[in-house]
Amino acid sequence: MFDEDKFIRECLRPLASVPGSAGFTDDAALIQPPDGKSLVATADTIISGVHFQAKERPNLIAARAIRVNISDLVAKGAEPFGYLLHLSVPASTADEFGSEFAAALGSAHETYGLRLFGGDTTVVPEGAPMSISITMLGLSPEGGPVRRSGAKPGDVIFVSGEIGDAALGLLVARGDPLPELPREHLSHLEASYRLPRPPVGLQPAIVAHAHASMDISDGLIGDLERICLASGVSARVSASKVPLSDAARETCERDPRLMKVVLTGGDDYQALVVVPLDKSIAFARDALTHGHTVKAIGTCGDGPPEVVAVGMDGQPLDFAHTRYTHRG
Amino acid sequence: MFDEDKFIRECLRPLASVPGSAGFTDDAALIQPPDGKSLVATADTIISGVHFQAKERPNLIAARAIRVNISDLVAKGAEPFGYLLHLSVPASTADEFGSEFAAALGSAHETYGLRLFGGDTTVVPEGAPMSISITMLGLSPEGGPVRRSGAKPGDVIFVSGEIGDAALGLLVARGDPLPELPREHLSHLEASYRLPRPPVGLQPAIVAHAHASMDISDGLIGDLERICLASGVSARVSASKVPLSDAARETCERDPRLMKVVLTGGDDYQALVVVPLDKSIAFARDALTHGHTVKAIGTCGDGPPEVVAVGMDGQPLDFAHTRYTHRG
Repeated sequence: MFDEDKFIRECLRPLASVPGSAGFTDDAALIQPPDGKSLVATADTIISGVHFQAKERPNLIAARAIRVNISDLVAKGAEPFGYLLHLSVPASTADEFGSEFAAALGSAHETYGLRLFGGDTTVVPEGAPMSISITMLGLSPEGGPVRRSGAKPGDVIFVSGEIGDAALGLLVARGDPLPELPREHLSHLEASYRLPRPPVGLQPAIVAHAHASMDISDGLIGDLERICLASGVSARVSASKVPLSDAARETCERDPRLMKVVLTGGDDYQALVVVPLDKSIAFARDALTHGHTVKAIGTCGDGPPEVVAVGMDGQPLDFAHTRYTHRG
Repeated sequence: MFDEDKFIRECLRPLASVPGSAGFTDDAALIQPPDGKSLVATADTIISGVHFQAKERPNLIAARAIRVNISDLVAKGAEPFGYLLHLSVPASTADEFGSEFAAALGSAHETYGLRLFGGDTTVVPEGAPMSISITMLGLSPEGGPVRRSGAKPGDVIFVSGEIGDAALGLLVARGDPLPELPREHLSHLEASYRLPRPPVGLQPAIVAHAHASMDISDGLIGDLERICLASGVSARVSASKVPLSDAARETCERDPRLMKVVLTGGDDYQALVVVPLDKSIAFARDALTHGHTVKAIGTCGDGPPEVVAVGMDGQPLDFAHTRYTHRG
């Protein structure tokens, strides 16, 4: 039986020790951003059996809950600041869950400069899934967060990192049929699914150069479609330009149908950034200065707000369902 | 099958139309409190079968989710500002749920001066309960939110409104055995459980006079114990001074054992306010000016951080379990 009081007292309170974060010793936290800074807020929930596998380790659950929110902030050009945590834990959860989960939160505090402002813990009846909702506060760049809505015809579409590893990794984690692959490739793909790696540090390059930006959580094509809809532009992407890891490339070479999973599968938590043509080189250079590789994968046009992905043969790929449905 | 896209597009987006609240059309909201104001944040989750009954109406679920957070803000002396919403909806939820739920949110916006900054909606598999987590932002009073920790020996303990109706109302809603009561009393008790009424407007009186304050969600005695623990004081409460509705009084007259439910049952969402003796009259007067009746129910002492509740006969009441476990 999960001991909620003990978890709050021994695990969460030590994390909420910065000034203002009285959330686990009081009922309200005082939020004081540095002078002159505005706040941006993102909200993302992860649920067992939907966004992560029921058997996932507590530290990876905590890291995922934090990182899917960090990913939003990065794409908006905002710096992580702190968060509130809503945690629903099934009654049968082992007591060790609490300490391992909290240790991973503490580690994320160090990595991202976060503080825990407060939250709420509920023990839920058997049969209800574990659920972690985080409201993450970031420090807004001057001029406000970078929106989805600023893309213009002629702009260049960039992605950070490599695409598709997580979506293929989910197939590995679920034991779905895949081509024969070296063990290190399988490990790489599964690890990419289980631990998102948002491109923290890319914010200054995004703020300096982007017309529009968002993170890729529901699949490259589907999320690019959202930018198209918000901006009123079309987009044309070359599948051959989408950056792939060695593992993803080899997987798709062995079964080319899996390229659809790469492009629409989601869980990438990389940044999808639309930059005017005359700033493209500066954007890529600035990204590299901050330790991140970004790659141009296509351009925006003035057609209807749709995404066309072109295959190796120059023919449009057909994706009936561009949006990913999470299923852990 | 609940249509998440339609719900977001048709129900939530119209609510998120104020500047900055791009949460349902973008990935991050800009939070801009009025000049010179600091923010306070509270976080409360309500879950079907735990905090409300599975058959509860959508408008009352929405109102409850908002009000349990408003209640925290009021007790801290903060003014409601806006919120982020994490909603988990079982797949089988009727489509009408969305519009009724959102209409109640809209109505709460008017009542409390709220705006929806953003959030996250997830359709959860059958068997998972509906869950609503709200992170509520308020405007802090000067000097910061009123804490649990400022109570001093000799201070007077006040409560707003009437206590125990909701806890008795839960018994009514569950069909638990109760004494024979007039129908209007049963209706009053059940309505008090289903729709919390936090004492909005009491904030200036709390800020002007209180040493410590919190809302009563887990039962008067248990929550007062939290103030005692945070402040390092003892508390002595006279059960006969605890303000009761006619319905609660008649219920307890017919079955005096139910006084324990009144004092420890929870879900009151009234304010528990500790005020120095020389400000007691001014506090009660200022509360009345703002339309609220507050009642002195006891005093703080310099003993160990415990609560003693004294019955009509002057003898301490025995409450082995002072904290309420939510069960819808």
